[in-house]
Amino acid sequence: MTGKRKGICEIITIGDELLIGQVVNTNASWMGEQLSLNGLQLQRVTSIGDNNQQIIDSLKESVERAEFVFITGGLGPTADDITKPALCEFFNTKLVYNEEAFQQVKALFQRRGMKVSGRNKEQAMLPEACQPVQNENGTAPGMWFEKDKTVVVSMPGVPYEMKVMFENQVIPKVLMRVSRGHILHKTIMTNGIGESNLADLIKDWEHALPKNFKLAYLPQPGMVRLRLSGNGRDNIELEQTMSTLVDKLIPLISEYVFGFDKDSLEEVVGNLLKEFNKTIGTAESCTGGYLAHLLTSKAGSSAYFKGSVIAYANEIKISELNVTETDINRFGAVSKEVVEAMASGLRKKFDVDYALATSGIAGPDGGTPEKPVGTVWIALATDTKVISEKFQFGEHRGRNIHRSALASLNMLRLELLKQ
Amino acid sequence: MTGKRKGICEIITIGDELLIGQVVNTNASWMGEQLSLNGLQLQRVTSIGDNNQQIIDSLKESVERAEFVFITGGLGPTADDITKPALCEFFNTKLVYNEEAFQQVKALFQRRGMKVSGRNKEQAMLPEACQPVQNENGTAPGMWFEKDKTVVVSMPGVPYEMKVMFENQVIPKVLMRVSRGHILHKTIMTNGIGESNLADLIKDWEHALPKNFKLAYLPQPGMVRLRLSGNGRDNIELEQTMSTLVDKLIPLISEYVFGFDKDSLEEVVGNLLKEFNKTIGTAESCTGGYLAHLLTSKAGSSAYFKGSVIAYANEIKISELNVTETDINRFGAVSKEVVEAMASGLRKKFDVDYALATSGIAGPDGGTPEKPVGTVWIALATDTKVISEKFQFGEHRGRNIHRSALASLNMLRLELLKQ
Repeated sequence: MTGKRKGICEIITIGDELLIGQVVNTNASWMGEQLSLNGLQLQRVTSIGDNNQQIIDSLKESVERAEFVFITGGLGPTADDITKPALCEFFNTKLVYNEEAFQQVKALFQRRGMKVSGRNKEQAMLPEACQPVQNENGTAPGMWFEKDKTVVVSMPGVPYEMKVMFENQVIPKVLMRVSRGHILHKTIMTNGIGESNLADLIKDWEHALPKNFKLAYLPQPGMVRLRLSGNGRDNIELEQTMSTLVDKLIPLISEYVFGFDKDSLEEVVGNLLKEFNKTIGTAESCTGGYLAHLLTSKAGSSAYFKGSVIAYANEIKISELNVTETDINRFGAVSKEVVEAMASGLRKKFDVDYALATSGIAGPDGGTPEKPVGTVWIALATDTKVISEKFQFGEHRGRNIHRSALASLNMLRLELLKQ
Repeated sequence: MTGKRKGICEIITIGDELLIGQVVNTNASWMGEQLSLNGLQLQRVTSIGDNNQQIIDSLKESVERAEFVFITGGLGPTADDITKPALCEFFNTKLVYNEEAFQQVKALFQRRGMKVSGRNKEQAMLPEACQPVQNENGTAPGMWFEKDKTVVVSMPGVPYEMKVMFENQVIPKVLMRVSRGHILHKTIMTNGIGESNLADLIKDWEHALPKNFKLAYLPQPGMVRLRLSGNGRDNIELEQTMSTLVDKLIPLISEYVFGFDKDSLEEVVGNLLKEFNKTIGTAESCTGGYLAHLLTSKAGSSAYFKGSVIAYANEIKISELNVTETDINRFGAVSKEVVEAMASGLRKKFDVDYALATSGIAGPDGGTPEKPVGTVWIALATDTKVISEKFQFGEHRGRNIHRSALASLNMLRLELLKQ
């Protein structure tokens, strides 16, 4: 090998099941994450069907653009093995029996107490131009080709075979062949503010970003993630700059930031409750149990979550929480008075430190001119007070429920931070 | 437009987040499924970063190979909007203010009681060569280009904006431009049986399928969808054959089939409750509100769903439902005795016709040799009896919660069908 490479990669995933939407391409996103974590740059993913010509065409294109091309799929013990012939054609080589590959399969079978079959011997037929790559979890070996400036690695498509092969065998060999800069990412998670308003608040900060840093807005219902990415030669300098930039950003939007990277709002709130040794319960109307579901989706949530009353019918609000019929008639079920009564009623009944309550019009029906679909009241009862807030979400039932639950969690988060 | 097209499609997804593995490319698989359902052929998905040159290069390549190119991502109200300039460069056109697009955003904002900002006016600047495509759920309009034999459609990357646009606006326009045979799909929804057992039950039926029909097994946690697809020239003949095949299939697996095509279990159960004018409530431990959430995710569910008690803590099971401390000590919270008491307790307390109760070990902790993670008891109380069943699900918390809720709904469905 002469000269070091920069680490420009492409992925080709093979399989009809990816194109007709039967399988989501999680292999590509997982590999992308691994490459990024190792400072390698994935510039393109190409997904094609089980078709010889498509494999050869996309290989030809990728090899021209990239230094490393990773192929997954199209290798396996059944008749749909089409990748090997295509690779032979592309690299102008032929299949030969590879003793090393066969011995690896034999060893795997012995560990599992199974006998090798004729089909396994067939799988040890590999293109002469490649080095076999061990498959610790299956019978189809990977293949490593080097031609001119480009490395091509073909791997099985079964995720648990590919992942172990990629991590243990492929990535280390790739890293030996690159001299690379570093890439650093930091994601800032925000809730309760839209993309455009967020952009307005941080406009000056964003314009002043150094040239080697860039910002991406990644909106989801109820939250916007801000991903800051930087690249450079000196990893320590890069981390220092990242940290300075984030330190300047946070004060501009502090009330909206609930976490970083893979944090979820329910996780952040759960951790705070655990840390302060506090308990929570919910009294839900429009969220219909979804808020309780989010709180209990995290393992270990029984340490702080005690339970809920889902009071969809008004009679349940009256019989189970301390809502009065007078208040419902006077102010409506979607009102400050009722939602506050629900929160304090649940708090007392379940003997919890905090109670969250929701009441709103999730839609698509039930809206009025004064209270259109998307009107939601949320209340939080603590040992000293009951606070509440009115929100106006959109027209979509599922998203209204989701956004109501996130807004509730955020109300609790802000209260917990005052501790 | 001259001459009809065959329906060869490609997708280009834009976004660094897809390449660094922060977001899985579910847009592409969803679009692939829609195209396949409509008899269109997706031959390639290309995933690239937020990079002008990459957008232009991949567009150039896709346009040469395909008749329809669908782009998602890179459209939004913030500064990372890079798709429009690239499209202008590619189509040799410039951005002009589009009144139609602006009026659509204005109408959306008015429905939500919000005011349009200068940024929204900016979003109505579109390439002169395109027709705007309405975005029913957001502010960034889609763009439809036709050049020579190829159609290029650019859409936002936010899934709920893209999906509505693709289904309601893009697919119908595409179908008008292709000449094709007929393709018919019918999906049979099953619950409570695994893929291999299902395959055994319908083996003979499957082997006898006509040549122009094929069957796909689409497993999901807690359910298996069977998709039967047929193609042919004569639509009426195709529909008759489909109907005959389905009529022969159903009796083989009748107890597992809960619906067809887009039916969900919660919808089917909701419709039955409505039809029989019955009410339901839930008493949930391991499902933590998720069962109530499924029941209330359907619009109009207040007609039959009254409410729930989420009794995560044992003290709530005792104080709110008629569970005794003795039973909890003697049999454990995850037991036939406790879950049946929860169901009948809730039924009485909330005065509902049916009450479902769940108690199980969702994991990852809390398992014992006798009751490993995934052990779940489910009970149903009616006006005449309480029935219960023990399930053994897997090790994954989220999937255990999901499967418990589906099994509960199925228990109620089977009971309702006895009416």
